[in-house]
Amino acid sequence: MTDLKQEPPRLSAETDRLAIDTLRMLAADMVQAADSGHPGMPMGAAPMAWTLWSRHLRHDPADPHWPDRDRFVLSAGHGSALLYGLLHLFGYDLPEGQLRRFRQLGSQTPGHPEYGETPGVECTTGPLGQGMAMAVGMALAERMTRARYPEVTGHRTYAIVGDGCLMEGISHEAASFAGHLGLGGLTVLWDDNSITIDGGVERSCSDDQLARFAAYGWHTESVPDGTDTEAVDRALTRAAADGRPSFVAVRTVIGDGAPGVEGTSKAHGSPLGEEVLAETKKLIGWDHPPFTVPGDVRAACAELARQGAAEHARWTAELQALEARAPERVAEFRRRQERRLPEELDAALEGVVGGKARATRKSSEAALKAALSVMPELVGGSADLAESTGTAIGEVIDRADFSRSAIAFGIREFGMAAILNGMSLHGGYRVFGSTFLVFADYLRPALRLSALMGQPVVYVFTHDSIAVGEDGPTHQPIAHLESLRVTPGLRVLRPADDAETVEAWRLALERTDGPTALILSRQSLPQLRREEPGPGRAVEVEIVATGSESSLAEAAAEALRAEGRAVRVVSALDRTLYTPDPEALTVSIEAGVTSGWAGVVDLAIGIDGFGSSGKGGDVMAHHGFSVGAVLDRIRERLDRVR
Amino acid sequence: MTDLKQEPPRLSAETDRLAIDTLRMLAADMVQAADSGHPGMPMGAAPMAWTLWSRHLRHDPADPHWPDRDRFVLSAGHGSALLYGLLHLFGYDLPEGQLRRFRQLGSQTPGHPEYGETPGVECTTGPLGQGMAMAVGMALAERMTRARYPEVTGHRTYAIVGDGCLMEGISHEAASFAGHLGLGGLTVLWDDNSITIDGGVERSCSDDQLARFAAYGWHTESVPDGTDTEAVDRALTRAAADGRPSFVAVRTVIGDGAPGVEGTSKAHGSPLGEEVLAETKKLIGWDHPPFTVPGDVRAACAELARQGAAEHARWTAELQALEARAPERVAEFRRRQERRLPEELDAALEGVVGGKARATRKSSEAALKAALSVMPELVGGSADLAESTGTAIGEVIDRADFSRSAIAFGIREFGMAAILNGMSLHGGYRVFGSTFLVFADYLRPALRLSALMGQPVVYVFTHDSIAVGEDGPTHQPIAHLESLRVTPGLRVLRPADDAETVEAWRLALERTDGPTALILSRQSLPQLRREEPGPGRAVEVEIVATGSESSLAEAAAEALRAEGRAVRVVSALDRTLYTPDPEALTVSIEAGVTSGWAGVVDLAIGIDGFGSSGKGGDVMAHHGFSVGAVLDRIRERLDRVR
Repeated sequence: MTDLKQEPPRLSAETDRLAIDTLRMLAADMVQAADSGHPGMPMGAAPMAWTLWSRHLRHDPADPHWPDRDRFVLSAGHGSALLYGLLHLFGYDLPEGQLRRFRQLGSQTPGHPEYGETPGVECTTGPLGQGMAMAVGMALAERMTRARYPEVTGHRTYAIVGDGCLMEGISHEAASFAGHLGLGGLTVLWDDNSITIDGGVERSCSDDQLARFAAYGWHTESVPDGTDTEAVDRALTRAAADGRPSFVAVRTVIGDGAPGVEGTSKAHGSPLGEEVLAETKKLIGWDHPPFTVPGDVRAACAELARQGAAEHARWTAELQALEARAPERVAEFRRRQERRLPEELDAALEGVVGGKARATRKSSEAALKAALSVMPELVGGSADLAESTGTAIGEVIDRADFSRSAIAFGIREFGMAAILNGMSLHGGYRVFGSTFLVFADYLRPALRLSALMGQPVVYVFTHDSIAVGEDGPTHQPIAHLESLRVTPGLRVLRPADDAETVEAWRLALERTDGPTALILSRQSLPQLRREEPGPGRAVEVEIVATGSESSLAEAAAEALRAEGRAVRVVSALDRTLYTPDPEALTVSIEAGVTSGWAGVVDLAIGIDGFGSSGKGGDVMAHHGFSVGAVLDRIRERLDRVR
Repeated sequence: MTDLKQEPPRLSAETDRLAIDTLRMLAADMVQAADSGHPGMPMGAAPMAWTLWSRHLRHDPADPHWPDRDRFVLSAGHGSALLYGLLHLFGYDLPEGQLRRFRQLGSQTPGHPEYGETPGVECTTGPLGQGMAMAVGMALAERMTRARYPEVTGHRTYAIVGDGCLMEGISHEAASFAGHLGLGGLTVLWDDNSITIDGGVERSCSDDQLARFAAYGWHTESVPDGTDTEAVDRALTRAAADGRPSFVAVRTVIGDGAPGVEGTSKAHGSPLGEEVLAETKKLIGWDHPPFTVPGDVRAACAELARQGAAEHARWTAELQALEARAPERVAEFRRRQERRLPEELDAALEGVVGGKARATRKSSEAALKAALSVMPELVGGSADLAESTGTAIGEVIDRADFSRSAIAFGIREFGMAAILNGMSLHGGYRVFGSTFLVFADYLRPALRLSALMGQPVVYVFTHDSIAVGEDGPTHQPIAHLESLRVTPGLRVLRPADDAETVEAWRLALERTDGPTALILSRQSLPQLRREEPGPGRAVEVEIVATGSESSLAEAAAEALRAEGRAVRVVSALDRTLYTPDPEALTVSIEAGVTSGWAGVVDLAIGIDGFGSSGKGGDVMAHHGFSVGAVLDRIRERLDRVR
């Protein structure tokens, strides 16, 4: 598709200048009207953003979902007013009234860009560094799509990042990963304004960023004057021509043009104030009411949007031509874009349930491989624990072959999760990533964004309790299950055996509007028998458990039944679906913190302190997870009730 | 003190070789006996570790708490068997019996090094990258101590890191920070074995690590053959002479010497097996029973330990001489080492409580500054939100002046927390770090280690709810308070006004055995009046709330009281201390998830979905945090009870 790309005609320098001022004043007006927000970044970065959008970005404002559009990520999400200004100018469905309602409840112009709230916003940004990593994910998805559908794929991914993004550790993980895979479709623009919230960058950072990105294998460019649109343009052109990902350092002045404020941290996070804003407008000769878009700018943007629509139309024709030649490939392309599951999935998963004891990470591996056999869109990998987590699904992608399904994310949990978010947002893929449950902490900020953005990322978390054993407390999750359960929008499933693991994978894949965490055991677990007390008999004790504790619950129930008690065991794959029997003594058993169960059952058996290093069985027994200890706790409670 | 350092006498090459083989075989024997663990790293890294410990490390095995000892951090914590071997050889209180009980329940040799479990283990490692960041914190603490007590301070910090540490994002944050401050007392050795758990490093990483660290302003060294102890020695010597932090790349072979296993990921995380181990011993001419330490090695280590003790004795004499000249300075030094609070603290905090409404972040700022006025050991800073979080306490440390108390951590939350852990472990400091509560997610893995290691780090988390307002869902914590509360060992305090904030700081500072999180509001809050229902009267409704919701609870209670109901309001600074009134309808109000309250009260009012961007008051009201909405919920419940 790259050949189809047409050079947009150059606008006059005057129009460029006017458009840039429009973006800067729109942003300042938005922030002023809201009396809240960040004017500095938009005012400094407007020239590079305009140059990118007017000369390089290939998009169709009339259809923000065109699969082959270029992606633009504002990783410095606090500069949202700049993005809203661009979307408004180019004709996305974001009218002036929305700009005027910047940062107000219910508007389409929230404080930070929120995916799903505003047409043209590709992802939610604000938590620093993640936008850049999501851009890496989008660029990877593009490259993988190009390996599968070269006829209809050839878009670039752009990101504007700030100093904060580059200081965050995730920038390292994402940049290292992108450099390793040579994701040449990615251009990152650094808004190098030397200012952070607390003051000058020199207070806390002395990195040579160009050298750093070169060390990751990136192509680097430097633009010493960020208002020099021609220099920005040349750098972007060279970046696009280079086979490596590109890092373009653009020197800017935060709050550029605002007297007494520009170049200082005062410009970062507060409105300019009516007085300074008026003076700024006077200095640049901007004699318009707030929220004005000059006619020349409106006309230029409309023409650029028309060109984008024309490119989109050519692409659609190309897709139709491909459809005529290869209808099944295009049907598959469309199915993937629409996140429809293949009809064969149920049958594929059916064969997974066996009778033998095994770890749920092994059950999961079988379910995953079954799903993969019918879901070419299912891709993912591990933060270097593929074998251990049951997610080793074959040869991994490398620079020479992006047609594979497996991704080696390296020891980069946070980067992995954010990259998965970017891939999911890009479209055409269902994605999964794995690590040990205890390291869910490392990726938690990105998992939160999966949930906030409603992306169906499947998180495979194994080694899910103190039963991990010898690796000890550092590797034994305690609070993790509960801290995932309280995350809004995340579905948490902890299966107990083959049948539940298959069900968990089915639920995770059927979900299209949010992430799912699968919580899996390291140790082997028996297949549950699921005995019910005789019909008509009142249940005296109901034991609810999850995962590896379900079989422990069953064993304890057996012992109580032998004493003549009516006992029910509930294996709660999803705790939110469990309703306690109001007539029974309800007891939960889960090798994690008890606080979330305390409101659900009468007696919550768990572990609220850290674990220990030792053989898994020893550690479990030491912390009260044995049939004897569980029975003691239940009997004590039964005695008290009496 | 550096001048006091004496060159240890060179051992013969034969003794070096023997000692290295001893370390390698001890590690292999430990893993084999446990039938669990990681033999590969110790076998490859033993030469560099031995060279460091025998020729450079200045320590006194008889006193692992000597304040001026060199610190050694095994950031690649899975290689714990190497560390235990070193501690055993050098005469730390870790007898052979403990090596034989490697990874067994209750032993002093857990799977990963655990601070407090084993004499000489400086910090808990295993979660990758954090050891390196803690080493940065230790080196910073040393540099700051040298600015305060130059007469008795002059130690170095060493870390051995693996590929995993370097891929993790925190390595970027920590290395960038160390380079910025020019922490020349730090030497990081990279165990460059080209192998990760899933296979070769080349599957997932192509970084030029030397160029990367040079870009951070580090001195770099390369040792192409990691078994060349003389080359390692020379690199360590040059590193110590350089004013910058040093990164020494040491090329090694994982599982070095184990036939069929060495140089592959098979050597990483599994015992060699009896057969391969026997063959390995044969190949290197090791004809001893398991856990043998040859007499020559034992003697050499004893002599090295004696030299360390002598250096320690000279240091003690120096301290005593200083004491004679400046008794108060040394008394202060000792008080700080022992984590004793100054007696003046109570009086200093007393003046903080005022009568005016203000945000608890402002109350906290006042309390912090009061504490600082009497606690020179109190140091810390912010991840670039010092002003916003009320932790801007003056000029920040820089290369020219380490005598200040304020640290600019940059936009590096995870790095900040791990560095604080390292500073706290180093001793002599009480530390705090701040960011917005929503970004607690970014540093969660280090906060977990604060708790696991029992370090009294004070986390200042502000902007604690949806009341943050305009910044929107990305910046509005929902699950964070609860997910912190479920973390074992962490104390979570959410004050409602001046008085509670001062109390929270007092509790945090009085605690010496674990971390505390202070959860503070962005918005202004009234000073609570704390009205009790008349004595002798049964309470009908008890409303428990925390932080900003305590005043909302009070307002709702007022309205109910006006209807003639007996209502108590409990402001629960620490939820774990709240005991519900069994006779009353208990209601909680907290702008966070409800799951943790569900087990405590009859009605939990909270927010279980994401927030919204808008004015803080609008957002609160929209999500049910208004007097009217709260009263509706309570009245509905009262009606139901009736």
